[in-house]
This record gives sequence, C-alpha cells and structure tokens, in this order.
Amino acid sequence: MSNTTWTRHHILSLADFTTAEYDTVLQTAASFQEVLSRRTKKVPTLQGQVVANLFFEPSTRTRSSFELAAKRLSADTLNFASATSSITKGETILDTAKTYLAMGTDIMVIRHREAGVPVAIAQEMDRLGVKVSVLNAGDGQHEHPSQALLDLFTICTLLDPDLPRVELLKEKKIAIVGDILHSRVARSNIWSLTASGAHVHLAAPPTLLPKLFLDYANDKPGKLFLHWELEPALQDADFVMTLRLQKERMSAHLLPSLREYHQMFGMTHSRLQLCQPGVKVLHPGPVNRGVEISSEVMDDPEFSLIQSQVTSGVAVRMALLYLLGSGKA
Amino acid sequence: MSNTTWTRHHILSLADFTTAEYDTVLQTAASFQEVLSRRTKKVPTLQGQVVANLFFEPSTRTRSSFELAAKRLSADTLNFASATSSITKGETILDTAKTYLAMGTDIMVIRHREAGVPVAIAQEMDRLGVKVSVLNAGDGQHEHPSQALLDLFTICTLLDPDLPRVELLKEKKIAIVGDILHSRVARSNIWSLTASGAHVHLAAPPTLLPKLFLDYANDKPGKLFLHWELEPALQDADFVMTLRLQKERMSAHLLPSLREYHQMFGMTHSRLQLCQPGVKVLHPGPVNRGVEISSEVMDDPEFSLIQSQVTSGVAVRMALLYLLGSGKA
Amino acid sequence: MSNTTWTRHHILSLADFTTAEYDTVLQTAASFQEVLSRRTKKVPTLQGQVVANLFFEPSTRTRSSFELAAKRLSADTLNFASATSSITKGETILDTAKTYLAMGTDIMVIRHREAGVPVAIAQEMDRLGVKVSVLNAGDGQHEHPSQALLDLFTICTLLDPDLPRVELLKEKKIAIVGDILHSRVARSNIWSLTASGAHVHLAAPPTLLPKLFLDYANDKPGKLFLHWELEPALQDADFVMTLRLQKERMSAHLLPSLREYHQMFGMTHSRLQLCQPGVKVLHPGPVNRGVEISSEVMDDPEFSLIQSQVTSGVAVRMALLYLLGSGKA
Repeated sequence: MSNTTWTRHHILSLADFTTAEYDTVLQTAASFQEVLSRRTKKVPTLQGQVVANLFFEPSTRTRSSFELAAKRLSADTLNFASATSSITKGETILDTAKTYLAMGTDIMVIRHREAGVPVAIAQEMDRLGVKVSVLNAGDGQHEHPSQALLDLFTICTLLDPDLPRVELLKEKKIAIVGDILHSRVARSNIWSLTASGAHVHLAAPPTLLPKLFLDYANDKPGKLFLHWELEPALQDADFVMTLRLQKERMSAHLLPSLREYHQMFGMTHSRLQLCQPGVKVLHPGPVNRGVEISSEVMDDPEFSLIQSQVTSGVAVRMALLYLLGSGKA
Repeated sequence: MSNTTWTRHHILSLADFTTAEYDTVLQTAASFQEVLSRRTKKVPTLQGQVVANLFFEPSTRTRSSFELAAKRLSADTLNFASATSSITKGETILDTAKTYLAMGTDIMVIRHREAGVPVAIAQEMDRLGVKVSVLNAGDGQHEHPSQALLDLFTICTLLDPDLPRVELLKEKKIAIVGDILHSRVARSNIWSLTASGAHVHLAAPPTLLPKLFLDYANDKPGKLFLHWELEPALQDADFVMTLRLQKERMSAHLLPSLREYHQMFGMTHSRLQLCQPGVKVLHPGPVNRGVEISSEVMDDPEFSLIQSQVTSGVAVRMALLYLLGSGKA
Repeated sequence: MSNTTWTRHHILSLADFTTAEYDTVLQTAASFQEVLSRRTKKVPTLQGQVVANLFFEPSTRTRSSFELAAKRLSADTLNFASATSSITKGETILDTAKTYLAMGTDIMVIRHREAGVPVAIAQEMDRLGVKVSVLNAGDGQHEHPSQALLDLFTICTLLDPDLPRVELLKEKKIAIVGDILHSRVARSNIWSLTASGAHVHLAAPPTLLPKLFLDYANDKPGKLFLHWELEPALQDADFVMTLRLQKERMSAHLLPSLREYHQMFGMTHSRLQLCQPGVKVLHPGPVNRGVEISSEVMDDPEFSLIQSQVTSGVAVRMALLYLLGSGKA
C-alpha cells in the first residue's frame, strides 16, 4: 500500500480531487479488498486510534459500513447519534465536534442534513491547528464522497480487477437517473466520473433536474449531458446509476406517483436493452423495489452491482480511514 | 471442545434438534462457562469474524447477552436497531439482511416481531449460496431457541455440573406456567424438554392455553400435558418455568387483572410446597415482580434460578456462535 | 502506577474521600494522561473485563468519555440506554442491575435522573456479596464524582503538571457560579475543593442558591461562602467554575430570562478583570454560549479550560476504572 502521494488531510468534497488521488484510493481499497477475502479480516493499522462517527442525521448502512471499516483497521470507535445527543441541550455543532476532539478523536466521520457542516468543522479544526481529520459522510444535498468513491471502485474493479484505475473510464458512457436535484450522491459522482474522462448523462423529470444544471453541463463541455427523458441517456450506456427516490418528494408535488415514476424512469430488463451489452446497474441503497429499479433487475446478478457496492464500501472506507489516519504517524 | 458432530448451519428452531446436538451445545457451553470463571474471560476463537445483531424488535437483555458473547469470542459486532434503520425508508427486510451480508457479516443474530423472518432470511442466504449463518433470537410467537437452550443448560448443570447432558432430564416433571399462547419461549422449551425425555406440564388460564394445544399433546403422548389450573401442574414438579406476562394482554381482555392472575397462577412459597423438595423456579426475564412470581420467591436463592439463567445465557450464546462460526474455517 | 492505598470498592460520592484518595486519583490519571499522549493510546490493563454503561438518563459526552476510557484500558463495553430498555417493560432498576451482574459485568457505570440510585445498586451488590463495582456517573441533583475529579485534575495539573496533588489548592479562591441548587456537579465539587483546602465561593440568584445552603457553609467555616451577587465571588478568584443552566428552569419561573441571567451572572472578559491575573474558567459542558459564558471567553485559550476538562475526563475515568478494576485481581 503506497500512499506517498497522499497529502490530503480531510475528505470533504471530490470537487478538487486529482486523478492521482482517485488512483491512490482505488489501489489502497484493492489492497484492503484482498484483506477482506482472508479468514481473519483484520489489520492492526489504526490500533489505538479513535474514529468517531458523528451522525447528526440517522443512518444505518453508512454508519455500519464506517464502523466495520474502522474495526477492521483495529481502531476504537465512538458512535454518536443526534437523537440522544447534547444537540437537544443547545450546544452548537462545532462545540460537539470540539468535545470529541478533546476526548482524543483522530478521525471524525460526519453526516449532517445541512450542506457545509463537515467543511465548517474541518475549517475550525484547522484554525485550531489540530491534527484531527474530517470525513464527510453525507451533508445535505451537497456531497457524499465515500459513496462516489465506492461507486468508482465498484466500476473500476469490474473493468480491471488487478489494477483498478480511473483511466479505465475514459470515453465510457454513464447514465445517472433519478432525483438529481436532491442527491448528494449524484453531485459527488459527477465530479469523480467527469474527472475520470467518462461521459456522464443525467436523466430525470424536469422537476428533479432543473435547468440550472445546464450551467454545470456548460462548464464541462463534452462530459456532462442533460436529458428530461430516459431513453437518450440509456442509449449505449455502459453503466447506469440509479438514485434513491425520497418518498417525501411526493408530498412536495415534485412527482405524480411512485407508480408513474417507475413507468417513466424505472429500470427494467426491457429498458436496459437500449444500453451496451454487459451494462451494469448501480444504486446507493436502500432501494425502493419496483420504483427506481424493478425487483427482477435488482436481483439479477448479470445486471445488478448493488451487493458489490456494499462490499466495496467497506474496502473503500478502510482505504479512506487508512489514508487519513496513517498521515498522523 | 469437540464439535465433530455439528453440521447445522443455522439455528432457527429446536423442532428437529437431536439429542446429540443438545449435548454438543451443553458441553460446549460448559467449556465456555469455565472460560468465564477465569480472570480474563476472553478467547480469540472468532477473531476477525463479524457478528451482526439485527434486532428489528427492541431488546436489551438478549442483545447485550449476544453482544457480550460475541466480544468474548473476540468477534467484531455490529448492532442494528430498527428504530434508527432504513426499514423506515422502505427497504425490505431481506434487502437489509443482504446488505449486512455484503458488508461481510459471518453470523446474523435476528429478532423480529413476526414469526418466520429468521427462516426466510436463512432460506434466502442458502439460495444465494453464501456461508453466512442465521441465529433466531426470537421471532414473533414462534421460537426463541437460545433461550430454551440456556434454560436447558441451567437445569442440566444443576443436575450434573461436571457433565451436563439431556438424559439427566429423563422422567423429570417440568411445569411451564403462564402465557403459553403468546410465548415463543414456551414453544422452544416444549421441543427441547420433551426431546430430553422430561414430562412437560403446561398450566394457564384457558384464554392463554387454548384447546388447540391439545393437538400438540396428542402428538407427544405421555410427554406433554395440559392444565387449566395450577395445582396439578405443580404437584411433584422438579422444575417450574414461569413465563413473562405481557401487560398488553390485559387490554385484549385475555386476563382480568394482574392481581387476579397472581392469585391464581403466581408462584409463591406456599404454592411451591406442592412440588418436589428442592424444586427450582425459572423465568426468562424481565420479571413483573408480584405477578408471575412473588418478590420473596424471586429473591430466594434456594428456589430461584433466574440469575443463573442470565449467566448461562452468555456461555450458551458463546457456544452457539462458536458452533456456527467455527464451521466457516 | 501505585494504588497500594486504594481500598474503595465503589465510587458513589466524594463526601468521605480522603486527601490520600484524591492524590491517588490525580497521580493515576497523570500516568494515563501520559499514555494518551502516545501514538498508541491503549493499555491492556482491563482486558477481559466488562464495563457496563447503564445510562437510565440520556447522555452523550459522559457516556462517550467512559466508553473511550474503558476501551483504552482494553475492557469490553456494554451500553444500555433506557429508551430501548426493559425498564419500560416493568422490570425494576435493581433487577436490571442484577441482570448485568449475572452476565459478568465487572464495573457498572450508572447514571440516573433520581438521586440515590447508584448507592442503592451498590448496597444491593454488597448485600449479595459480589465483587462488582459501581461508579456513579451522575444521580439526580446528588453527585457527579467523576466530573468533580476531572475538574480537580484539570486545575491541579495546571498548577503542577509533574505532580498534581490537592495541597496545591490550599488557600486558592474558587468561585462556583450558576444553578447551584440543581447541580450535582456543584455538590461533588464542594466536597473535593473544600477537602483540598480551597476557599469555595458560591454565587447565584437567590432562586438558584437558597438559604438552606447556609447550613453547608456553617458546617465548613472559613471554607464555603455564599453570595447572591457575582462580584464578591469573582473578586481575586483563582478559578471560576460555571455551571450549566438547564433551560427547563425558566418554565419553573426560577429565572427571568437567559438574557437577563447572562447580564447578571454570565462570564465575560470585563468581569474576569475582578479575578486574579491568570484566572481560568471551567464549565462541565455542554455550554449554552452567551448564557453562562460569553462566546469570546469560551473560545479564549488564555481563560478557558473547557477543552482541557474534556481531555482530562478520559484520563481521570481511565484512572477510576483502573483503581476499581485492578482490585479484582
């Protein structure tokens, strides 16, 4: 595991990630993927270090994935869930973070329903001149870097299991389908996929893909394309990323009904015929079966990468914690 | 610790447990009981393995017991409680289980308020051809195998601390008293105790022990007996298992009042005079003091095995995790 | 780490702590503070022991601090939070404690919103003749010993980092400001600070510092003083301990408004001019910024010891768990 090129102290956004950094993450994750295939899936890398999962927004799968990644690196973990927290007692979020800092936390994994919270905490830590690292585990509708990195790893290891690297994505067509507007997963993926040289095609109903996204597309000429219908996005696609549909969107009148959404944008076997042979479907989970994806596609190992994404998640998060944590030696 | 005879991959029900399997569990648990008497109560047996406690129904004592058992085997543990879970986000239970599988879980300990969920998950895992084991930690009114096994261990180690084994129960009279109808504990205990050759006497008001249980009794002639009064069940009993009374039953008009229940079926010192000298009382906990059992009996070490049951619980659950986990070598 | 003088089996109150015991805690904590400055902040001292955090009242910071302290001593931890507990199922608190005892708990860390619960549990454990230790992590308005001990450690290590000891506090003036009436932190600190030979000055509005406290003051002549205005307490003070203001107090009409409280008793740079040069401010957290303390003072490292208190908390709790746990050899 070489991380000689790694100088990043926090992981907050993929906006300024370099291809060298993406490749370091991919190759470090590949090493840990190998560790996870052994009977004893544990390494002593972060022994004695403390990883605090500060989840101001509830989550099961992401929190479990980070917790397991930390434990497999032999770190001690602290879990914080806002329901039982001092937040209700009037303390500010920065003060909560400073409390965990003062307890001796080495890496803070932070999820918050408002965009910008992890950045604000990281800036405060830097201002204080302390060594703690901040890892954004999802902030509002802003970014979810570890999800995009595990998506990248899932795709690249499929393309070359021995040496996953971003150049494998050059000229690939990748469709991102669904609630683009509200999706931090989409935002992070747009950064990583366009940086990798892929052609990214967004598809959603106009309410979930507003015209303002045209500005993004104009910034990335020849890399990012917008569609308000599904078919042109799927046409010859190599990969299809579907996004979770928050049911709350319906009450905001952004969508007619789940059934209608599925009829227009849901992934089915027949629709996938439009894509390249061998096309694969991703979803960050949890999936609303029969809405974003038909149950048949979801359970079809020939198409679905959803389970691989979850497995990749642990390896990628081990890599991220390792890259942040080993810089503290 | 020999488990050469152990071939079972999941523990879902005691319906088809053999006496050889019961004895393997009892003797493995006895070995761990010895470990627990040492100053360092930990063995490296399951190091690097992951035990996920998926509790879709809240529980403190059973979850803590499994968590401690896993930690004493040096496994890493993941806790999932449905209150903070994706379940509320529309994901199916099978998809949740598959997510924990994909993260690398080796053993899933599952509790759910509906009967059959652990079986359904185990079938899905087998269909997928994966090695993960499922352990039923209580499903609806169906079964609670680890509770019945710890009850069995508690009784058998009392009868012979050096070599607990089921044949010790032959011809013993065991009364099970209380809310038989709704009790998964009773159902699992009926399987293990009748298989061990004990005579099992059920006693409850008719609303909590309906006539349909006569079919069970007819299936096990000379082994299982029904009573709608307490006295004939207690007469010459060697052990009395009391069951927790869910207070919700009252609102369903199945019971007049807690006070009246205690007068008719509550265990008191004077009632226990009907039993064999040396009779012992069990309860799966948590106890409603003064309802199922008088406070005096509960606190009387001459009669109560309740604390021993809790202690046995950790040793028996270590044994179960060990027997499932070591098969993965 | 010498603890030859340590004979205490539970830590429930500081009322009868001797100066030798305070010094043992301080010096043991200093040793662990040194451990915490290493890259691998972990020692195998309590390997195989179980620390159960039984928090019948929700808490994030204290629970995390104890959990981390236990993990850094290599103990296994069990967390119990009453929201998801059997308490709601009618079990008594003593029965819950006995259940954790029977599972093999070595040290119980207990928080409860009613005064006296940890004492009652400790008495029951002693009556049963078992070796488990009870540590009071805050009971109602009674005591919070570990908080007062970490306050003491924070102050004494500031006065002499090499050899923190209580005699350093002799003749120091320490102001305790705020909601004395409801504060378990204040009560524990009054014991430790007056025992150390400090002069303790309490300051609060009359509703939060009732006349009955005059009895305490009369019991400790020349050591404990009461003020219903801030200024005489701050005059020449060496340390100022501020207390958290529970917002619930307002609805009970004990306080006019947070704003008015801050104007009368809030700590600001200008007010601190009354104190000794080099005065330091403490707060148990979480802080209501702009109420008990101005944001400027809170963030001013020249005055605020709040972050040091949190850091000290882990070292002091390691010391307490060590002193209780190593007695079980």
